[in-house]
Amino acid sequence: MTDNASTPKTTASVPFDRAFLDELLLRAGIDVLIVSSKHNIQYLMGEYRFFFFDQFDANGVSRYLPLLVYPRGRPEDALYVCHGLEEANEKELGKFWMDTVVAGTSVGAMDRAVEHLKRFGNGVRTVGLERAFIPADAEECLRLSLPNVQIVDALKPLETLRARKSPTELAYLREASERVVEAMLEVIGSHGAGTTKRELNDALRREEMLRGLSFEYCLIACGASFNRSPSNQPWQEGEILSLDSGGNYRGYIGDLCRMAILGEPDAELEDLLAEVDAVQQAARSPIRPGTPAGEIVRIAEETRRKSPHVSHVDFVAHGMGLVTHEAPRLIGRGSFPYPPDHIETPLAEGMVISIETTLKHPSRGLIKLEDTLAVTREGWESYGDTARGWNRASGP
Amino acid sequence: MTDNASTPKTTASVPFDRAFLDELLLRAGIDVLIVSSKHNIQYLMGEYRFFFFDQFDANGVSRYLPLLVYPRGRPEDALYVCHGLEEANEKELGKFWMDTVVAGTSVGAMDRAVEHLKRFGNGVRTVGLERAFIPADAEECLRLSLPNVQIVDALKPLETLRARKSPTELAYLREASERVVEAMLEVIGSHGAGTTKRELNDALRREEMLRGLSFEYCLIACGASFNRSPSNQPWQEGEILSLDSGGNYRGYIGDLCRMAILGEPDAELEDLLAEVDAVQQAARSPIRPGTPAGEIVRIAEETRRKSPHVSHVDFVAHGMGLVTHEAPRLIGRGSFPYPPDHIETPLAEGMVISIETTLKHPSRGLIKLEDTLAVTREGWESYGDTARGWNRASGP
Repeated sequence: MTDNASTPKTTASVPFDRAFLDELLLRAGIDVLIVSSKHNIQYLMGEYRFFFFDQFDANGVSRYLPLLVYPRGRPEDALYVCHGLEEANEKELGKFWMDTVVAGTSVGAMDRAVEHLKRFGNGVRTVGLERAFIPADAEECLRLSLPNVQIVDALKPLETLRARKSPTELAYLREASERVVEAMLEVIGSHGAGTTKRELNDALRREEMLRGLSFEYCLIACGASFNRSPSNQPWQEGEILSLDSGGNYRGYIGDLCRMAILGEPDAELEDLLAEVDAVQQAARSPIRPGTPAGEIVRIAEETRRKSPHVSHVDFVAHGMGLVTHEAPRLIGRGSFPYPPDHIETPLAEGMVISIETTLKHPSRGLIKLEDTLAVTREGWESYGDTARGWNRASGP
Repeated sequence: MTDNASTPKTTASVPFDRAFLDELLLRAGIDVLIVSSKHNIQYLMGEYRFFFFDQFDANGVSRYLPLLVYPRGRPEDALYVCHGLEEANEKELGKFWMDTVVAGTSVGAMDRAVEHLKRFGNGVRTVGLERAFIPADAEECLRLSLPNVQIVDALKPLETLRARKSPTELAYLREASERVVEAMLEVIGSHGAGTTKRELNDALRREEMLRGLSFEYCLIACGASFNRSPSNQPWQEGEILSLDSGGNYRGYIGDLCRMAILGEPDAELEDLLAEVDAVQQAARSPIRPGTPAGEIVRIAEETRRKSPHVSHVDFVAHGMGLVTHEAPRLIGRGSFPYPPDHIETPLAEGMVISIETTLKHPSRGLIKLEDTLAVTREGWESYGDTARGWNRASGP
């Protein structure tokens, strides 16, 4: 960053670890960061969630595209390119720690960001973008307007910044987890034979919402079927049910799986769930600061391989926070083919890990537990860690 | 499209007006369409809404990016690039009229689309993308993989395709509108003095959800303030309240504004709301098939200019459907600086128009009505067209 930019203002107080972000940007070779994903904007703004963050995208001939421009080491020169309704309403409420400017289209937003970058002169050689979260037309605007600037992907520095959660973030993740499990128990306890998967899904959405969560999805299977989409399939007497749902509290995701049964579980079902739980408990055992994150997977795999149903059992582990799968990323396969970049990364206080074990039994159905663990100074604590056995339906 | 592609399969039955889409693509010079916005995928899939459509985007080092590849005139060669969970669950339920393939990242998704395009050989000269809804990394993948292909923006042909709604779509828009107004009346009728705007906002979210809607936002003002964000501002005795909320039913948006008061409106308030209503009624008067869409604005403006508070009154009109502001686009200013491309476009049966009149009275506050009108064969009909006067709070 050269000094021919405007006179620095008083250093803004920022709601994140500024020194760490600046270090991450330096390592990634990023002079100026332009953040466009809603989760990273929320993080860098300090819990800010405009009400468009949940659903609103398409509009007119373009879309809602908030951009946060952060010149490395100079928070006083940050800029938030926002929607007119944010400028008119949220600014007055004191939500922004930086200057703001309004734009109404994706290209218009990048135009405003470029105007701001030009104030810094030739000092900006690299701009970090989240390239999976910036529309092609906005990126083109940047490339054509500043042809000498090199574009660098900023996803990983931001993911690293967010990996260790603050006490406030941990509290939100705990709330999210506990409320998801409470909602599941309410649904299980108030529905009975003949209820369809769609009805159970809709009931869970309602119960999550009534508990202040924003419902994200529910993967739901019952009977011997492995199909986990809402449908007209009824849950029938004697059948098992798995509810695997994500709901967010202030943007932070609770994602757990619990089991239920219409009736009483027999010995085989008890054994199968115990088999799943054994892998889950093994996965917890190595969790403490300093342990390489990949140990979670290694130890879970050891236990999984001893399972009587080893060929039907699958284990997954991943970091979780504002994003369902984030750092530490530990497994890359199946629906989530992300590089498991953090096998060697030491676990650190404040990291949050979701662990999931699934047993697809050919005749009994899909039996799964998913739990949430936060790394503490001494080891770990679990969020929403209740109702992990066979929960009984008792509804009409 | 050349003939050196694979042998055409049996023509697929598609859930949209294929001849019209093909004509629009031909006019736009698009050989193959690659759709990436959730609203347009829902439209072309035939009411399909995967549960990730509502919220889910970020995941791992990338994002959920569904892509629908549609070669002009050859629906039998369409392809849906989907998430592993869609392939595993939704496909079995018969949701897809085309072949599917799985990808886990934005670039991975475009890789699959490019592989598919390569089957068609050199016949593909132009690809239509929604450039505000395709991530930069995915578009780059297309550009680098097929350097001789020209990229064309596909937003407008798709917008035109969607402009006239089917009876099913109109039924959904009616449901959405009616349920939004019902939810507002429930909130107004069950809250009283001292309730904060945030509490009212949360109550409206709950009431919309309980009526099967997906809450999008609520712009809420009370007292003399024009601020419309949820906050701790209490609604107090004698004060007015405006609720302007969007909620979608199966993706289709209900967006209306209604007024309430804590107490009884005085004569001035009655007059002010009547002034707003006069503009709204004028805007309806020219609506019938064949009238140039811009007549709505012209006639509303005539009435607005006669208003005693003309300098405080604003009028907006816009098409609405799966997107809050869509064709016919009639006004381009303020927070919505989209080109008003459809001033001369004749209104047609099945178009849906949202009209909005706002009076920002310096001492009485923000007084607004927003209504939804569908163009019928004879004229228009209104959706959720109730409770347009001063609604009384009666809560605790």
